[in-house]
Amino acid sequence: MAEGSVAGAVREDRLWQRHVDMAKLGGTPRGGVNRQALSAEDAAARNLLGTWAKARGFATFTDTIGNLFVRREGTDAKARPVLSGSHMDSQPTGGRFDGMYGVLAAFEALEALEDAGVRTKRPVVAVAWTNEEGSRFQPGAMGSAVFAGQYELEDMLQMKDWKGVVVKEALVETLKAAPAPMRDGKPGFPLDGYVEAHIEQGPRLENDKKTIGVVTAIQGSRRYIVETLGEEAHAGTTPRAARKDAFAAALRVAQAMYEATTDKDDTLRFTIGRVDVAPGSPNTVPGKATFTIDMRHPSDAVLEAHEKKLKEIVAAKAAPCTAKIERVNAVAPTNFDPMVIDLVRAKTNALRLPNMDMPSGAGHDAMHIAGLCPAGMIFVPCERGISHNESENAVPADLAAGARVLVEVLTALANR
Amino acid sequence: MAEGSVAGAVREDRLWQRHVDMAKLGGTPRGGVNRQALSAEDAAARNLLGTWAKARGFATFTDTIGNLFVRREGTDAKARPVLSGSHMDSQPTGGRFDGMYGVLAAFEALEALEDAGVRTKRPVVAVAWTNEEGSRFQPGAMGSAVFAGQYELEDMLQMKDWKGVVVKEALVETLKAAPAPMRDGKPGFPLDGYVEAHIEQGPRLENDKKTIGVVTAIQGSRRYIVETLGEEAHAGTTPRAARKDAFAAALRVAQAMYEATTDKDDTLRFTIGRVDVAPGSPNTVPGKATFTIDMRHPSDAVLEAHEKKLKEIVAAKAAPCTAKIERVNAVAPTNFDPMVIDLVRAKTNALRLPNMDMPSGAGHDAMHIAGLCPAGMIFVPCERGISHNESENAVPADLAAGARVLVEVLTALANR
Repeated sequence: MAEGSVAGAVREDRLWQRHVDMAKLGGTPRGGVNRQALSAEDAAARNLLGTWAKARGFATFTDTIGNLFVRREGTDAKARPVLSGSHMDSQPTGGRFDGMYGVLAAFEALEALEDAGVRTKRPVVAVAWTNEEGSRFQPGAMGSAVFAGQYELEDMLQMKDWKGVVVKEALVETLKAAPAPMRDGKPGFPLDGYVEAHIEQGPRLENDKKTIGVVTAIQGSRRYIVETLGEEAHAGTTPRAARKDAFAAALRVAQAMYEATTDKDDTLRFTIGRVDVAPGSPNTVPGKATFTIDMRHPSDAVLEAHEKKLKEIVAAKAAPCTAKIERVNAVAPTNFDPMVIDLVRAKTNALRLPNMDMPSGAGHDAMHIAGLCPAGMIFVPCERGISHNESENAVPADLAAGARVLVEVLTALANR
Repeated sequence: MAEGSVAGAVREDRLWQRHVDMAKLGGTPRGGVNRQALSAEDAAARNLLGTWAKARGFATFTDTIGNLFVRREGTDAKARPVLSGSHMDSQPTGGRFDGMYGVLAAFEALEALEDAGVRTKRPVVAVAWTNEEGSRFQPGAMGSAVFAGQYELEDMLQMKDWKGVVVKEALVETLKAAPAPMRDGKPGFPLDGYVEAHIEQGPRLENDKKTIGVVTAIQGSRRYIVETLGEEAHAGTTPRAARKDAFAAALRVAQAMYEATTDKDDTLRFTIGRVDVAPGSPNTVPGKATFTIDMRHPSDAVLEAHEKKLKEIVAAKAAPCTAKIERVNAVAPTNFDPMVIDLVRAKTNALRLPNMDMPSGAGHDAMHIAGLCPAGMIFVPCERGISHNESENAVPADLAAGARVLVEVLTALANR
């Protein structure tokens, strides 16, 4: 087949309409979605995808952590499939494209292959991973991590939401409301490749006027909690020299950290997102302050070097208070397969789409699947880079462009 | 009478035992008290004071805001009385001396006069003001402010605690549990002088090894709320250059404010006590931060000049975020009457007690009464300056020393 012939079967209007239809499930008054993992809205989305699959004659099945698969057969039924997808769950005040785009782009790829009458050697399978967001049940990327053997199925089934409902229970309810043939046993099966399409969730593509981001890696991330301990004192009577002001100490520490994490090319991400000051009374000098740090970079060595700096700052800047820093999480960077990266770039160029190589700032299901088979990602722009927000937006033409690249890449992988 | 003869009738052991007895009413496991205004514990304290007064033959009466008075007659029943006291209510996790000392020192003065057989010209009256702390019902210093005509009685009777109970209702319950003859009508009556004894609630006396603080003034205080507004963004994907980080802005503003409020003699009090950062998610760049400022100084001009600086900092330091500062409260400094200040200093020196002149860092009922008659205050040390804390502590000898000065001053005022 000629280059771009399958891409030509991608239908922008159909792909957009599917986003519109899905956005109604958990739709919020402010134009976003609240479709949390294993909720009634999640079940509704599973049913809708199942209905579309059935209409096209694609088989659907689920696994014991609730990942939902839509399979288009290849000429060799025994060949390891090529997989593509993302997630359908959202943040409580989430957007219409985060995750859902990757599922619908994969489904559009299946439809485009079908419409173009293209038979691939390998099966091509679309997937909707369970609970990527991690907002209802911790940890996030649960379905893909269990599929990849990173987390134990039994452990995850026992995770509780804030109401005390366990995953196992919510999963039974969801699959009752959205039945699909069950693939029993531990999730996971051999794959020959994985490609995930996603909105960028950052402003770089828009700023650089690019349509496609060729994703080279997912940056590593580390989380810390910093605590400063001082002494509560009367705000009116205690001279500054006699104070051990835990917030003033936190401020010195934080300020030094912002400075130490400034890099020329603005690649290192350093965020203080949560701050708690106790006792929180306007006329009492704070006795304790805690704040979280989220630090990310494509290089683990850079993260390591900066962790050292953070520790030095905590040791140096807190006096007369005491302070400590605790690392609560570390995810190593994911480097995607050069073969897949090259393929994405080549297909994007063949389609004459403006593109750039870039690491992903956010974590995605692809980071777990990259350990199983050659994997990669395709980014499309989202308005002002805004995500995890009801005002998240993307344009139909960009979504379709990403789906065109995706179907070309999947076709190539499925014919390996 | 010779100098110090009434002071000689002050009994350290009796005064201490009264503190021990009162500390049982609302006593906490950690050695403090929870005796909030118009609670059952407050009523118990009123009853105990009433019992002691009755045993000594002193008349008690209350007024329509619940201030409780204990009167020892003078030789001229028509002469304006001299008043002394403080409050018996506490913070929810308060100490045994804050307020209570001033009430018990005044009562000890009455007893010492009685024991010494001294008749003064004017009546000497001890008072326990209603709701000085303001922790259950806002605003604090309620009883003294209503007495002084600073707040309207009817307004205060409608104030609610966090459970929705109004002062009026709680007052009826309290006076039912702790009855005292009612002085009807608007609170307040002519006074010839007022002296309040109190623990310092700061470390200066202890640090300087002084027994008595001759209080010259209560510093003025101003409260502000600062708000910075940025934009929520994904912590992993948003480069620093593209961020409007509301906490980073708050940090720049706060840091500049700490610097701008550093004074050579460490007199200006600047406290950031409450900090709120939203949405408070570790992986979201904060879109909003608010913090409170409590600023105090004996000079209103100094407060005014620093308010100007704070406003300039808010305007200069928040970009790329926006910020605003709002003044939510301002209390002008109280300058005590030079006649009373001189009298306190003279009596302290006559008793050969190490002393120093000092302004009060905290607000007290005396700030309202100072507008009605010549007024002053006497401070005694408290351990490490700690107050509003269950570990608040003071030593019997210092408490007795303060009571000795007090009774000498009251005797002098009552014979004017």
